[in-house]
Amino acid sequence: MVMKVVGVMGPGTGASKSDLKNAYEIGKFCASKNWITLTGGRKRGVMNEALKGAKENGGLTIGILPDEDKTLFSPFLDIPICTNMRSGRNYINVLSSDIVVVCGMSPGTSSEISLGVTAGKKVILVGLSKEANEFYKKLAPNQVYCVKDAKGAIEILKKEL
Amino acid sequence: MVMKVVGVMGPGTGASKSDLKNAYEIGKFCASKNWITLTGGRKRGVMNEALKGAKENGGLTIGILPDEDKTLFSPFLDIPICTNMRSGRNYINVLSSDIVVVCGMSPGTSSEISLGVTAGKKVILVGLSKEANEFYKKLAPNQVYCVKDAKGAIEILKKEL
Amino acid sequence: MVMKVVGVMGPGTGASKSDLKNAYEIGKFCASKNWITLTGGRKRGVMNEALKGAKENGGLTIGILPDEDKTLFSPFLDIPICTNMRSGRNYINVLSSDIVVVCGMSPGTSSEISLGVTAGKKVILVGLSKEANEFYKKLAPNQVYCVKDAKGAIEILKKEL
Amino acid sequence: MVMKVVGVMGPGTGASKSDLKNAYEIGKFCASKNWITLTGGRKRGVMNEALKGAKENGGLTIGILPDEDKTLFSPFLDIPICTNMRSGRNYINVLSSDIVVVCGMSPGTSSEISLGVTAGKKVILVGLSKEANEFYKKLAPNQVYCVKDAKGAIEILKKEL
Repeated sequence: MVMKVVGVMGPGTGASKSDLKNAYEIGKFCASKNWITLTGGRKRGVMNEALKGAKENGGLTIGILPDEDKTLFSPFLDIPICTNMRSGRNYINVLSSDIVVVCGMSPGTSSEISLGVTAGKKVILVGLSKEANEFYKKLAPNQVYCVKDAKGAIEILKKEL
Repeated sequence: MVMKVVGVMGPGTGASKSDLKNAYEIGKFCASKNWITLTGGRKRGVMNEALKGAKENGGLTIGILPDEDKTLFSPFLDIPICTNMRSGRNYINVLSSDIVVVCGMSPGTSSEISLGVTAGKKVILVGLSKEANEFYKKLAPNQVYCVKDAKGAIEILKKEL
Repeated sequence: MVMKVVGVMGPGTGASKSDLKNAYEIGKFCASKNWITLTGGRKRGVMNEALKGAKENGGLTIGILPDEDKTLFSPFLDIPICTNMRSGRNYINVLSSDIVVVCGMSPGTSSEISLGVTAGKKVILVGLSKEANEFYKKLAPNQVYCVKDAKGAIEILKKEL
Repeated sequence: MVMKVVGVMGPGTGASKSDLKNAYEIGKFCASKNWITLTGGRKRGVMNEALKGAKENGGLTIGILPDEDKTLFSPFLDIPICTNMRSGRNYINVLSSDIVVVCGMSPGTSSEISLGVTAGKKVILVGLSKEANEFYKKLAPNQVYCVKDAKGAIEILKKEL
């Protein structure tokens, strides 16, 4: 009885207020469905906010961590998976997610979109720039969704999972 | 509020009846303590039996899988982490465990003992051969415990976790 | 006396004629400088062509392979590094390159650009689409170069390495 | 025209004088055959000595490094492959070797023996303890050779490669 897993990806630093709000709302929604919220597991940015949204609403949370440094774990993390693979863990993030939701942009985040597509996953881009939407829509038209906010992402999650 | 994680390692094929029984008992004990049981996640051998012991007794289970093939997932698995790293995932198995319990021997299992020691983990060897006990006791006298059965392992888990 | 390494990335399938030509020219140029040409190591697309350009002109070639299948090795490969990590090896590709040259686009290729940027590498995009250039220029203005062809890339390689 | 690769594994710290001497001799022999010497790439212990033996005798050397810290690279290294995978790179060490030679013992080294066996490689144990020889001979009788010194290892390399 494998549980469903939603990966929420986004910048650790430099996330906008709306990126953080979207991440929280996605985590909260996953909790309401008894789906696991999976992120990179650190106590900052989109990773932390998605776990917070899940945890504060009774959800189960998992983090795929770049190293073993427990002082950097999100306080909203139930299950830490330690990889010691730095950014190499980004591939595991998306492989272990049934679907990937992206809130905001950074180099690491963009690698997760690309690796998610490579792994055959659906990827929901939430509130990204015109450039990002155009690039990824062209790269993988059948796997990438572009939406404005958490509400739009949740509509797609309901259909896809 | 990170949950405690016990890694249970052992042969996928060629496990003895007592290896399987020990794995089941460890999983069952972890469930009773509300600790997560973590294995390699496949539906065979020690991996499967430890997850079964946990799941049939109300525990939460996690598997670090060598690939994405869902037909090979243990039916007692709650949370699959897919790595596509084949045996490279053995390092993640032990890094993500607070302590490692080993039931039986195989080349892959021996790599998990060694990687566990390298990662600074305590490793409990359950019912292994004289050769294995002597070798690993010499390799890492302060990290390796040798016990006869699940009962012996559980005594150490109680002290260490 | 560590040798210099140029990573050449691009689609395995679906590369255009000019992508392949650019890859060949880059490999050839690296050979002339006694730099190593590094790719994903398979016998197809940009990977193969860059190794061919290097090998046919006396260069040393290395491939970071997704698996161990020797029937898929490029015939122009001197040194195969086998990872069994599938697309997870993309991170090693860029980490092991002093600079990354990208000829053409695919989901895997886009992950290599992003991981290269994350790893602090300079990345030269050769003949990519307007959408790709705009997206990556915005993502990492100080690390990404956009050029039209191999000639443009070679000018940058001369300055940077 | 893939080159042959011999992996030489052993302790970074705590290697005995004879371990170091054996490693040097193996590297030297590989150079004489135009085989690549592959190690963990750091400037210490068996890793460094094998590369030194190869390099001082005209061989080509490669290191699979746990991280990107160039100050820790062996000065006898031609080609550094950076993984950022810490001990996870041990699996790549053995996968990328046509045969594995082990000089001395440590937890990391023992993981390389086990992972080598798991990957189907022949593994030559040079001058190891009675406990180590007995354990690994029992674990993988058809893949493990136990010899006293570099001379014994070279005899096997001549037959196997």
